[in-house]
Amino acid sequence: MKRITKLGAITTLLMLLVGSPAYAQDGVSVDDLALATTVLYLMVATVLVFIMHAGFAMLEAGFTRQKNTANIIGKNLMTITLGILVYYAIGWGLMYGEQVAGLFGSDNFFLLGDTYEPDGTLEIDFAFQAMFAATAATIVSGAVAERMKFGAYVTVAIVMTGLIYPIVGAWTWGGGWIDALGFADFAGSTIVHLTGGVAGLVGAMFLGPRIGKFDPQTGKARGIPGHSIALGALGTLLLFFGWFGFNGGSVLELDGMLIGYVIVTTALAASAGGAAAGFYTRLANGKWDVAMTANGILAGLVGITAGADAVAIPMAVVVGLLAGVLVAVSVQMFDSLRIDDPVGAVSVHGTCGILGTVWVGLAATDGGLFYGGGAELLIAQVVGVLGVVAWVGGSSAILFGVLKSMGQLRVSEEEEIEGLDVHEHGVPGYPELQRS
Amino acid sequence: MKRITKLGAITTLLMLLVGSPAYAQDGVSVDDLALATTVLYLMVATVLVFIMHAGFAMLEAGFTRQKNTANIIGKNLMTITLGILVYYAIGWGLMYGEQVAGLFGSDNFFLLGDTYEPDGTLEIDFAFQAMFAATAATIVSGAVAERMKFGAYVTVAIVMTGLIYPIVGAWTWGGGWIDALGFADFAGSTIVHLTGGVAGLVGAMFLGPRIGKFDPQTGKARGIPGHSIALGALGTLLLFFGWFGFNGGSVLELDGMLIGYVIVTTALAASAGGAAAGFYTRLANGKWDVAMTANGILAGLVGITAGADAVAIPMAVVVGLLAGVLVAVSVQMFDSLRIDDPVGAVSVHGTCGILGTVWVGLAATDGGLFYGGGAELLIAQVVGVLGVVAWVGGSSAILFGVLKSMGQLRVSEEEEIEGLDVHEHGVPGYPELQRS
Amino acid sequence: MKRITKLGAITTLLMLLVGSPAYAQDGVSVDDLALATTVLYLMVATVLVFIMHAGFAMLEAGFTRQKNTANIIGKNLMTITLGILVYYAIGWGLMYGEQVAGLFGSDNFFLLGDTYEPDGTLEIDFAFQAMFAATAATIVSGAVAERMKFGAYVTVAIVMTGLIYPIVGAWTWGGGWIDALGFADFAGSTIVHLTGGVAGLVGAMFLGPRIGKFDPQTGKARGIPGHSIALGALGTLLLFFGWFGFNGGSVLELDGMLIGYVIVTTALAASAGGAAAGFYTRLANGKWDVAMTANGILAGLVGITAGADAVAIPMAVVVGLLAGVLVAVSVQMFDSLRIDDPVGAVSVHGTCGILGTVWVGLAATDGGLFYGGGAELLIAQVVGVLGVVAWVGGSSAILFGVLKSMGQLRVSEEEEIEGLDVHEHGVPGYPELQRS
Repeated sequence: MKRITKLGAITTLLMLLVGSPAYAQDGVSVDDLALATTVLYLMVATVLVFIMHAGFAMLEAGFTRQKNTANIIGKNLMTITLGILVYYAIGWGLMYGEQVAGLFGSDNFFLLGDTYEPDGTLEIDFAFQAMFAATAATIVSGAVAERMKFGAYVTVAIVMTGLIYPIVGAWTWGGGWIDALGFADFAGSTIVHLTGGVAGLVGAMFLGPRIGKFDPQTGKARGIPGHSIALGALGTLLLFFGWFGFNGGSVLELDGMLIGYVIVTTALAASAGGAAAGFYTRLANGKWDVAMTANGILAGLVGITAGADAVAIPMAVVVGLLAGVLVAVSVQMFDSLRIDDPVGAVSVHGTCGILGTVWVGLAATDGGLFYGGGAELLIAQVVGVLGVVAWVGGSSAILFGVLKSMGQLRVSEEEEIEGLDVHEHGVPGYPELQRS
Repeated sequence: MKRITKLGAITTLLMLLVGSPAYAQDGVSVDDLALATTVLYLMVATVLVFIMHAGFAMLEAGFTRQKNTANIIGKNLMTITLGILVYYAIGWGLMYGEQVAGLFGSDNFFLLGDTYEPDGTLEIDFAFQAMFAATAATIVSGAVAERMKFGAYVTVAIVMTGLIYPIVGAWTWGGGWIDALGFADFAGSTIVHLTGGVAGLVGAMFLGPRIGKFDPQTGKARGIPGHSIALGALGTLLLFFGWFGFNGGSVLELDGMLIGYVIVTTALAASAGGAAAGFYTRLANGKWDVAMTANGILAGLVGITAGADAVAIPMAVVVGLLAGVLVAVSVQMFDSLRIDDPVGAVSVHGTCGILGTVWVGLAATDGGLFYGGGAELLIAQVVGVLGVVAWVGGSSAILFGVLKSMGQLRVSEEEEIEGLDVHEHGVPGYPELQRS
Repeated sequence: MKRITKLGAITTLLMLLVGSPAYAQDGVSVDDLALATTVLYLMVATVLVFIMHAGFAMLEAGFTRQKNTANIIGKNLMTITLGILVYYAIGWGLMYGEQVAGLFGSDNFFLLGDTYEPDGTLEIDFAFQAMFAATAATIVSGAVAERMKFGAYVTVAIVMTGLIYPIVGAWTWGGGWIDALGFADFAGSTIVHLTGGVAGLVGAMFLGPRIGKFDPQTGKARGIPGHSIALGALGTLLLFFGWFGFNGGSVLELDGMLIGYVIVTTALAASAGGAAAGFYTRLANGKWDVAMTANGILAGLVGITAGADAVAIPMAVVVGLLAGVLVAVSVQMFDSLRIDDPVGAVSVHGTCGILGTVWVGLAATDGGLFYGGGAELLIAQVVGVLGVVAWVGGSSAILFGVLKSMGQLRVSEEEEIEGLDVHEHGVPGYPELQRS
């Protein structure tokens, strides 16, 4: 039990490394070092994906109103904490355990089981993937903001990380039926983002729009700006930062060639998305829309996520440009459909998740600039998307439907007008600011 | 002096790595690579622990009032800057220099000295540990918030990083008398967090409560909510993020097995702490208390820090659950003792620091789920805690007592009511917002 | 196209690493591992430099007024996105392509070309350096804040990342004429920071001061405090955090000795800068100036950047102390010259950039505490600074002059008074707060 002193450990290591010629035989071997550096690589990726949850929290808080800040922050804290716990207990086993008919895994729950052999790499891979599960859940939080009961959201977060996302994962990365089609989704445009986007869309539809979002006479959408562009932008930049781990870590092996490539495609697509959204809104509305520029960055990131390893560098720029415009158009479309998604989560993660996944089918390369993956790949991409939409749409409809039928889904009109903070949490997010 | 161009360096490296078959003989050896990757690993850990200081700054700012924001921010900036400088000048030598009677080190001050042989690993280890020293100091900042003179706090930060913490460190990680008992504190539940918590408690007691904290008639505590839950939560998530380096880096060697394990126990305990605090406050008060959920996350982190390498994975969840409830109970207890700790720092770092350290004695494992470390270990843990409490409590009582007797400890009533920002710093933290 | 499952990849890797004795022959070689860990190292550095852009955004937003928050945030989002795209298209080739007469590079635009051989390390180096290019541009944003047209700033960001910075880079890190003098600028005190500072100074001079900055009667500068010290300090700490990658990554090779050294000199200089600025303002004005403490941290960082690899550790502390005082003096000097630089960007990045570069000439070491680099080095440093000032000053004067002559540079008086947010972006940064 006694541990060597901190300095002692270093000194010992140094003697091993520097002082002793026998080190190469007695000390670290290439194999040990390869294992250890793989763990280091996945540790870096894990913490980067973790901080995306701070990004989501700041983004969603900044892009909604002051009176609901404690509420949206509380939802984000519950998502990451419950998400990790539930994925540990159930999700990981359901996703990667011994497969049953290509549909779901069946062991390794609670990181226990006969086939589970801990060795460091497996643990860090679990941590990395737990952050992904919580990401799929937190996307929902933005789409249902400012009107959903806290307890209902907690239920949704548990079901998302314990059942809905792990089944999507089992079908794909876990080696299930969609994977068997040849489906290519490198870091999860569909598996993570579209999953969150579809569940968010279903939630927004079951909840209905916020009071005042649509003009009662004309039915037209009215802008409800968020309370702090600074927090929203901070969230966006934390997400961009974390995405280097989301995509960069999805190589999963210390393959230097591929990691370098993925970082570049990720950076370029995000940049193209932000720039495209900025210029598009300037041209379309005469104003530089900062919030939409932020959403454009995220759209570019979602758009490249499926193919960050597979499309040529110029094609990464192109998908970013497309995503940056598409997200703005998609937000308008959902507005015109009278579906209220306060932070544009469905457009960013859903619409651009589909774009990114199909893009792999259109633009996968084996060296050239543009190489269609062929009809077979394109079909696999479309079928994969449809399969995920069907499962997530159906299962989340049941979930939201049950919550609604129990009267547990939406807060009262009084609570919504006065703000969820005071009613659900007992204290406003900004106790010293006047309520608007 | 002339350096090769940036591109040149890479190109040279590439030729070495890829182009030249003689590379394995002439270029990088396994030993060199092991040294370099160890430095990289500790660099990652160092920057993660560094960013915890942004976390503390945001947490403490968010959970105190608007009128004291510049003050608490200023304290945090002085803590990290002076902390690094003082630990460089004095602390590191006192902690890890040549031991005198198991009580303190005596050389390597200013990173100089005969026995100091710089080689990269030692430097990065210094940087990593300087961040730890500043962490112990910054915990005090939260407990004494909103009523202490800035100059007095600066003095406390210097003494904490130059004397109080290094002596604790010398007794433990430096190989002193507590270490000789077999005391096990992996990353510092006691050595860092309890040290900060005890000094904070002493400071809060010498200062007395803020005006208005306790009802003059009944003596009951009144809630004084912080001014921004968004900043508070951002701080919490930055701390969670940085803690992966705090614990993950404390392995100190590139041991893939142990690093992966530590990341998982850390993530699970934090999550369990947050979830437990959230559900506990919901059940106890009928409201989801977001600030307490944040404190629950930190409580879980402090709770696992001593045993992140030593307890079984399910026991990491259990200590997190215990810490998440304990922190809420502890906050109430200090309130009932009329000790005013504005951000709950003593409960998070002190109370849960003790829990975590004792937990190792109860739940250390050698492969099974639950393996008591035996009476000897448990005694070592208790004696270690008592030794640290005695030293830190005694020395910080002298420090705060001297400051108080000189009339330098607490700001005037007028200043406290109007806010420390204007009086100490000449400008409010939010010049455009009305003062509350 | 089909990828192995995530779990599959790990399992395969594990079998390779652990299960198979043939691994060392068949699997990862030392060369492969050295390549991969170099990419990992530069990936870590790249993401750290990236997050500096969140730091700049928060710093500039916090240290300017509420009514211009969306504007300054929008400028930062366009800087990082357009910066990466333009550097990809033009800047990288101009900086590192085949040199023409030591003046500019001429190929590898769009990461294409005959001499471009992608292998992972080159890609990650591009990503790392693209973040540097955007840093040079974003410095301008602070100096021209609160009065410049958004479209004009977008133009400046494009020219900075596509032409002005790459030419500076070609002359130095690209191996051009300044490099041939023996000029030593490890991570860019001159190449990045002075470049941004000079362009910012030129911009501030062409724009003229903000309305109300100088007393119309006396001509004296009046303080216009920023709207949120919390955001400003968050930005500062994110910059400090990211600077570990900025300097730490500039070693460019996995040289453990040098990386450890650079992290320590960087941490100490930043700390010395912050502490010096804090104590200096306390002594000079009787108040602890928190914003100036933050600027002192940044000044220390800029000051060490040129010589983080070259000066002795105590000399890193000294340059930090000098920079922390110098930045405060420089801010006063520009005020007395009636040049309005809202966030002190010219003083931090320009003045202290010169200090840091010359410091290498004075304090470079080869083992001792203090070893002048000799007259030759000092001359190279001064000539390098003058060359960069001449090029950047001249080219940016043309740029700002053309924009001004077209009437595109400065917003209208009405817009400046009401805030740029509403006019340029259609929505204030804080829609629920009253306008000041």
